[in-house]
Amino acid sequence: MLRETLRAEAPLVHCLTNQVTVNFVANALLAAGASPAMTDHPAEAGDLASAAGALLINLGTPNESSLAAMRQATQAAERSNTPWVLDPVGAAALPLRREISLELMHHGPSVIRGNGSEILALAQAEARGHGVDTRHTAAEGVGAARHLLAQWSALGGVAISGSTDHLLGRGDGDAVDLFALTGGSAWQPRVTGTGCALGALVAAYLAISEDPMDAMLIAHAHAAAAAEQAETQAKGPGSFAMAWLDALDGVELEPFLLSRIDSGAQDRA
Amino acid sequence: MLRETLRAEAPLVHCLTNQVTVNFVANALLAAGASPAMTDHPAEAGDLASAAGALLINLGTPNESSLAAMRQATQAAERSNTPWVLDPVGAAALPLRREISLELMHHGPSVIRGNGSEILALAQAEARGHGVDTRHTAAEGVGAARHLLAQWSALGGVAISGSTDHLLGRGDGDAVDLFALTGGSAWQPRVTGTGCALGALVAAYLAISEDPMDAMLIAHAHAAAAAEQAETQAKGPGSFAMAWLDALDGVELEPFLLSRIDSGAQDRA
Amino acid sequence: MLRETLRAEAPLVHCLTNQVTVNFVANALLAAGASPAMTDHPAEAGDLASAAGALLINLGTPNESSLAAMRQATQAAERSNTPWVLDPVGAAALPLRREISLELMHHGPSVIRGNGSEILALAQAEARGHGVDTRHTAAEGVGAARHLLAQWSALGGVAISGSTDHLLGRGDGDAVDLFALTGGSAWQPRVTGTGCALGALVAAYLAISEDPMDAMLIAHAHAAAAAEQAETQAKGPGSFAMAWLDALDGVELEPFLLSRIDSGAQDRA
Repeated sequence: MLRETLRAEAPLVHCLTNQVTVNFVANALLAAGASPAMTDHPAEAGDLASAAGALLINLGTPNESSLAAMRQATQAAERSNTPWVLDPVGAAALPLRREISLELMHHGPSVIRGNGSEILALAQAEARGHGVDTRHTAAEGVGAARHLLAQWSALGGVAISGSTDHLLGRGDGDAVDLFALTGGSAWQPRVTGTGCALGALVAAYLAISEDPMDAMLIAHAHAAAAAEQAETQAKGPGSFAMAWLDALDGVELEPFLLSRIDSGAQDRA
Repeated sequence: MLRETLRAEAPLVHCLTNQVTVNFVANALLAAGASPAMTDHPAEAGDLASAAGALLINLGTPNESSLAAMRQATQAAERSNTPWVLDPVGAAALPLRREISLELMHHGPSVIRGNGSEILALAQAEARGHGVDTRHTAAEGVGAARHLLAQWSALGGVAISGSTDHLLGRGDGDAVDLFALTGGSAWQPRVTGTGCALGALVAAYLAISEDPMDAMLIAHAHAAAAAEQAETQAKGPGSFAMAWLDALDGVELEPFLLSRIDSGAQDRA
Repeated sequence: MLRETLRAEAPLVHCLTNQVTVNFVANALLAAGASPAMTDHPAEAGDLASAAGALLINLGTPNESSLAAMRQATQAAERSNTPWVLDPVGAAALPLRREISLELMHHGPSVIRGNGSEILALAQAEARGHGVDTRHTAAEGVGAARHLLAQWSALGGVAISGSTDHLLGRGDGDAVDLFALTGGSAWQPRVTGTGCALGALVAAYLAISEDPMDAMLIAHAHAAAAAEQAETQAKGPGSFAMAWLDALDGVELEPFLLSRIDSGAQDRA
């Protein structure tokens, strides 16, 4: 099973992420069994992305130096076939994030992970749209995710987070596989970085899995199962965050996986 | 009551703050019910400050990029009438912080929040003073706070943190209202970011309140009541920090507010 | 005893460290009783390093601005006789870290602290070596540490972290004192920043101790004893991190110190 493989192989996951949640993301990766590296110097980012098992690009708090590092890292990842995840934080509200996302997408992310509004923003930006609202559900982002998969041939999957997560990957021929995954805890959006950490977990599982859908499914299940276990321990958002890290290490995934994943329709795009 | 309004409206609070406590500040805002955004790219800071319900400027670890963002954000806040809080961290000891503070104060902060030495430093720097000690009590900062209110007509209030917090706002005519607030926990100065988070809470309450004194009072009471509840759970500074976040979410404020606020003298300046 | 002195004097420890663990390092210093300052503006770093009781340079996530600050701070520390600790994070894998380390070492660190591979990398880089593996034990770094002590006359000690920590200092004449210290918890490498915090604790104890070996020993014992106490409370890496901060404040050191330090051979180099 992928979870045990993650612990056994402890793949190096290079994260170019935001300063708000960089500590929490590193601790989430360690708790899940991966080896995080958060170097964001432009002179180091390319080499590290080439050496890593996977790369995470999270646009939470970009600055000119970290953007230069992201360019180096995504180019190196493309050259080295390092799978990478784009988490376009803020792309729904901030034009710069959409521009950066579209630029980096030319270097072939394996998976894009975001909320419904962010996924809609990326699809609309491509069509030069404007004024995307930030309050869409994951289900509302499904059409945009299909559009992204149709337009970007190297893209392996799109994960849309929400109260029900929607995961889209490539099926046979032009088909798109769609899975919906319920579960998790209402405390998750009350702690900064639970979404960022989920993007990092997708990257970690991509490092040990050939299939983007497998990586998205196990990462989302891992995060959600840990959240449900943490909720039983939590007295508030502070203790929830701590217990979620504990549970990323200790939670049993099999019962969760059997009960919470609904295989969606395999539609022609 | 303002606290329920904060949770109901979940105002966007834009924070340009330091990298040491940015995660803790975001989590404190989320725990209290606000929506934090910590973007510090100069190209985004102005738009976000205009769109936000309130802005926090915290000088903990400035760099050239974040300073450029602070300039954009405070100018945008002034144009857009976004209320904003200045937390002049380190202004007592570091000349650069005093210079930056004085520059930004021309864009009309609603509230300045700091310890006694920082408030003294801002008042003295204005008079080209030097060598301010960093060990003043909040009470020792009251004269300096009155001076700042007299000199800066757009300034709505000054909050001085200490074992007793002193809150100064504008009364009728030239009068200055003064409130003293006791309470809190001795663990607070043993955890980095409890002061930064307090500044952010003042900003959050400014987003939903017309009156700076109301915002200062409820923010300080919220932080102090949560600290007292957290202290009952804490075995040390680590568990105190976690329990404080829990308590920002769950603590009852009414009993605290009734017992701990002393209305000070309403003096002519 | 040094631990009580640390709490009584609460020395200012200036840390130029990485953005991943800067919050955890500040909280660890506060828990142990020191006064952290994490300013990394190049215009402030020199003054603060001169005023501080000790300085920590940690190379976890360097950028051009923080590197400029590190240059200012180490030069000021050298001029002001402020003791300082170099933590060459990543020096084993990343050439830029080795270059920076060697440049800064000309300003006379009191102690270098790292894992076995990092210490080997610094010694080999000096000899223009390449390709250092990152999986060495602390014991494997001892020869390299002796080499560093022989080459850099101002260097007072080298601390090599591992399942058994190896601490090397200057003895009589050309002799090198070697101590091995067992203990700690297997959770430590599962939480980001426990090593960074250990480097900061060495700096804190250097601020109140003339002797580098004393500072290294008490810092490592403090961290390890706290880790053992935290392990008894921990349900996973999240609760371990919290409990470790609690224990840095509350743990009893004397029993640990009596049982876990083995005085090594005092060999001629």
